[in-house]
Amino acid sequence: MYKKLFIPGPTHVRDEVLQAMARPMIGHRFKEYAELQAEATSKVQKLLYTENPVFLFTSASSGVMEGAARNCIRDDKKVLCAINGAFGARWHDMILANGKEADVLEVEWGQAVTPELIEAKLSSDEYDAVALTHNETSTGVMNPIYEIAEVMKKYPDVCWMVDAVSSMAGAKIEVDKLGIDVCIAGVQKAFALPPGLTVCSVSQKAFDRAKEVKNRGWYFDFHLMLKYYHRNQTPATPSISHIFALNKQMDDILAEGLEAHFQRHLDMAEFVRDWARRHFALYADERYLSNTLTAVVNTRGLSVPKLNQALAEQGAVISDGYGTLKGKIFRIAHMGDLTMDDMRWLTGLIEGIWNL
Amino acid sequence: MYKKLFIPGPTHVRDEVLQAMARPMIGHRFKEYAELQAEATSKVQKLLYTENPVFLFTSASSGVMEGAARNCIRDDKKVLCAINGAFGARWHDMILANGKEADVLEVEWGQAVTPELIEAKLSSDEYDAVALTHNETSTGVMNPIYEIAEVMKKYPDVCWMVDAVSSMAGAKIEVDKLGIDVCIAGVQKAFALPPGLTVCSVSQKAFDRAKEVKNRGWYFDFHLMLKYYHRNQTPATPSISHIFALNKQMDDILAEGLEAHFQRHLDMAEFVRDWARRHFALYADERYLSNTLTAVVNTRGLSVPKLNQALAEQGAVISDGYGTLKGKIFRIAHMGDLTMDDMRWLTGLIEGIWNL
Repeated sequence: MYKKLFIPGPTHVRDEVLQAMARPMIGHRFKEYAELQAEATSKVQKLLYTENPVFLFTSASSGVMEGAARNCIRDDKKVLCAINGAFGARWHDMILANGKEADVLEVEWGQAVTPELIEAKLSSDEYDAVALTHNETSTGVMNPIYEIAEVMKKYPDVCWMVDAVSSMAGAKIEVDKLGIDVCIAGVQKAFALPPGLTVCSVSQKAFDRAKEVKNRGWYFDFHLMLKYYHRNQTPATPSISHIFALNKQMDDILAEGLEAHFQRHLDMAEFVRDWARRHFALYADERYLSNTLTAVVNTRGLSVPKLNQALAEQGAVISDGYGTLKGKIFRIAHMGDLTMDDMRWLTGLIEGIWNL
Repeated sequence: MYKKLFIPGPTHVRDEVLQAMARPMIGHRFKEYAELQAEATSKVQKLLYTENPVFLFTSASSGVMEGAARNCIRDDKKVLCAINGAFGARWHDMILANGKEADVLEVEWGQAVTPELIEAKLSSDEYDAVALTHNETSTGVMNPIYEIAEVMKKYPDVCWMVDAVSSMAGAKIEVDKLGIDVCIAGVQKAFALPPGLTVCSVSQKAFDRAKEVKNRGWYFDFHLMLKYYHRNQTPATPSISHIFALNKQMDDILAEGLEAHFQRHLDMAEFVRDWARRHFALYADERYLSNTLTAVVNTRGLSVPKLNQALAEQGAVISDGYGTLKGKIFRIAHMGDLTMDDMRWLTGLIEGIWNL
């Protein structure tokens, strides 16, 4: 039996999107492919309000996040890793695994990375880049990128790399207005596609910086990607099936309307937050709640594995807490193609189970 | 109109395989996923006659080829890149892009890398690794890995990295018997799946070497992959749809029988070679002809783009020559799920066109 995914990725994928994945294969050097890539990327540019090139990497987001660090940080410089959850910590690990130097701005889990905290660090003028996780699915915090952008603008030599993995397509991110240099997201979150493809916008500042960086590698090298991007191709064979599905899904997102699309995410978020406040408590700072995922404090001491087992029997699945938060919180994703009806259904199921 | 792909990747994908790609999504930390990964990898181990771990990387082969170099070459050592075509040259580029030192063993296009040539280089004792392209789709040469293996066995400190991208699943490669340390293939060639996933077997020798190498990175780090492999997972979210399809396709390959499967590839190859000898000429050295692709010298001076246009109208497509060989040769892939009937049909179509 299919379990509808209320986990923070992969999210629920509609049948129409799965069928778009299953289109007959074409060659990646065919004209048909170039047209497909051009169409899909131009639609993602609309979603991101950007004129920057949008690359389609056949990779999980992690590969591209590691690649961004290899493109944007020179050997004698450092990156500032802002960490307020598991995924920020992982990006820091990746950066170190590539021999890059990094400082950490650590914020308590459940709290947000604020513009003031970033500014206090940046004023030391040691940094080539800032790595920020926009939306921490381990805690349900969405960091305030619009406010942080005001600080970043004061440091024009610092590349701003944003992991928007679980927020892009679920919350408005105006890349050009914000001045985000590298904005990264896997398609298995708010895009609601199967995992396997990562989109990434890259600014002129990041391209200029990359020119000064040695050993950027090949597969995630921004300049190699750019060379092929100009002819609507990728250097290596891409996941064409994913791009078929992305192109179809972007049509549907644009048909819904971007404002309506983001509003639907906010509506679902507010519904789940209200429900959680009534019956449990919220884990994240109320000022920085995520639009795509809610972390619920398990004040009733439910067994989350048992809860999930009972949900599975009725065709749904949620997430336990991440790492040391296992059992202490549970997490409900409300993104992608999920709807208000899904949220009503899911919360009703959970109430039915704990009342047994 | 669908064009049946006689190009060296992506190759023709059957409807049943496309439908396996379109299965409803599951979470990558679910038990169902772990079972799927375990099943799929154990079947690929059978195909490769190996007990080495087989990793499933969500990436084009290039990423994994670059990653292999980052795992197997220490800072003060070098790699020997054997190059007899475009793809060997590209691997060399990738290795240099990662700041690794490399020597080149260059062989004329159309000729093979022989055991003698490898041995002459290795005796200098400078190398941590050898990078070899098993099957050069730019020239239609299949390098003699069984003979080369005899040389490699004399150098137990050298990691043998094999790009088997366009040969794995199309020709027998007994990884353990041959002593291949890293054996890499994208699934869009003889596996006949859509592009987007790369399989890679890794030996204990390669794992031991990797421990001595700094800055291996994260996404392609063999030890991080191994840690998750033990629980039948991957560190980052994998392309689950591709693994559904791989698992289905491996069932079909094993049901056909490995010997019969490789024989079908050889039969198709011999048919196309005979046809090419009768009407054109073969580009590659007769002693080292590829089982999965034939490079045909365009002795009739056909316009390959026009030939392909006429083929397209009848639902087929072949490849022009690669790079500077454009127009001078054309290439017919005979791998994956193509059959003898397909070869008869295609060559008949080509004859019909040039006789117009």
